[in-house]
Amino acid sequence: MKNMNFSISATCESATRTVVKARNFQMIIDEPAALGGSNNGANPVEYLLGALSGCLNVVGHIVAKEMGFDFKGMKIDIEGGLNPAKFLGQPSDERTGFQHIKVKIRPNTTASEETLNEWAKVVEERCPVSDNIGNATPISISLGK
Amino acid sequence: MKNMNFSISATCESATRTVVKARNFQMIIDEPAALGGSNNGANPVEYLLGALSGCLNVVGHIVAKEMGFDFKGMKIDIEGGLNPAKFLGQPSDERTGFQHIKVKIRPNTTASEETLNEWAKVVEERCPVSDNIGNATPISISLGK
Repeated sequence: MKNMNFSISATCESATRTVVKARNFQMIIDEPAALGGSNNGANPVEYLLGALSGCLNVVGHIVAKEMGFDFKGMKIDIEGGLNPAKFLGQPSDERTGFQHIKVKIRPNTTASEETLNEWAKVVEERCPVSDNIGNATPISISLGK
Repeated sequence: MKNMNFSISATCESATRTVVKARNFQMIIDEPAALGGSNNGANPVEYLLGALSGCLNVVGHIVAKEMGFDFKGMKIDIEGGLNPAKFLGQPSDERTGFQHIKVKIRPNTTASEETLNEWAKVVEERCPVSDNIGNATPISISLGK
């Protein structure tokens, strides 16, 4: 198959508020007051977790259909912990991002536990956002005017 | 420093539409019609790129302040390409997520190119979302009722 490209364009309106355009959609990203922001939107790491949930949903439905079991959707809770030291410029041996991301999926289905365990394994393997978080992805930054 | 926890809760309203709650904020994630969705919002991989832009903004401002140069914000364009074969269940040797993410930053500053190159290097190292994409992060999925 041919590669597909996706892109966004972001305007940094303050030190914490970012307005993102993705096609005709907008995301408002900010930090809570406790992290120095104006709390106008979810913060970047919450958006990361949100992206993961949305991707698991799409792939979850595709794989359930392929496996042929009754699947009426799901709820997904995701949490992660990080140490803000390095982010804030303090000496730290900890990584700056989430150290571990925990996903709890509550599917609405009559499928067996065995079927669902196999389903979850395949979903994680085929989910693009899970891949980009679970495995290293090269990021290149260039500067322009 | 103490670890900080972040979490989201997602309701999968259709095979492509996901409504995410992060504290008191909401994200509507969907797929365009070409990917089988109802196009009610940006898609999961666009949210991933958006999260990266928001995080680069916050860290960019912190590092510029530390380095003591004049910094009046920036625009950030991010793009990535992925091959949808594995995601869609077709045989493929390609990874399922973005193969490469390209970030173009246009800072509004009078700082020298040398200063900005150093700044960009430090920003990438300290940005939590860059870390979670650039380096492997363990994801654990559990199933519940």
